[in-house]
Amino acid sequence: MNTKAFQDYYPDSYSHCYGCGRLNDHGLHIQSVWDGDESVALFEPQPYHMAIPGFVYGGLLASLIDCHCVGTASAAAYRAEARDMGTEPVLRFVTASLQVDYLKPTPIDVTLEVRAKAIEVASRKVVVEARVIAVSEVCAIGRVVAVLLPKSMMP
Amino acid sequence: MNTKAFQDYYPDSYSHCYGCGRLNDHGLHIQSVWDGDESVALFEPQPYHMAIPGFVYGGLLASLIDCHCVGTASAAAYRAEARDMGTEPVLRFVTASLQVDYLKPTPIDVTLEVRAKAIEVASRKVVVEARVIAVSEVCAIGRVVAVLLPKSMMP
Repeated sequence: MNTKAFQDYYPDSYSHCYGCGRLNDHGLHIQSVWDGDESVALFEPQPYHMAIPGFVYGGLLASLIDCHCVGTASAAAYRAEARDMGTEPVLRFVTASLQVDYLKPTPIDVTLEVRAKAIEVASRKVVVEARVIAVSEVCAIGRVVAVLLPKSMMP
Repeated sequence: MNTKAFQDYYPDSYSHCYGCGRLNDHGLHIQSVWDGDESVALFEPQPYHMAIPGFVYGGLLASLIDCHCVGTASAAAYRAEARDMGTEPVLRFVTASLQVDYLKPTPIDVTLEVRAKAIEVASRKVVVEARVIAVSEVCAIGRVVAVLLPKSMMP
């Protein structure tokens, strides 16, 4: 498994995201890598990331799914072009839509594993499905439609 | 407009949510009130709540929609029973599913307005639709299926 995260290939100007930007001092620093055909991100919730005492806040799970899937979209788009991540032109995606289904309460005191797979890869749009796993149980599933960063958002 | 927020009626044991709990020192403190048949929440993103410089992080928008809609579900359920919020039995909801469509980049340097409406109110399930508005433009729309807090999550 390559241990350099997808997000670490983003150029500096695209690396300020609250969810996954390495240059955001206040952010979550979500990091994703390939594990075969799936991507995986591990995340340890902080005690204050709670919904109800003992359980993870759903907005945090949505954020994990969001950034992990957008990172997976980028990595999958590079793979589809048989190019290394980080090469030009940059394939940086953003979220067009996000769907999360919360299947069961997610315990807060364990490492969460987010696994995802790109199920549709086109040049400007990638669809990614994800699941959040805690102690071998799938607690939430998600689906992200990611689109290539529009010109209006370029720094 | 009653200015006491829906979330301020939650009992203390249900007020630790990262998104909207008044007892979470690290949280977002999302607060929602009625404005006629709609509910409204105002939120000022911090500079670090960014996706790309200049624009709000989608995971934050998902969190705003999540907590505002869950609060609206609770308020709408009390209304449907013609009871004041805060009376027993407590009607505290959690998110079963969350859908967010990002219509356009959301500017980060303005106050965001989240407006929502309960479109289906049953005793254990409320469906709420929301929109996030920045400078009079709808930047994101969302839909939350909220369900009454299951016994397994009760503190």
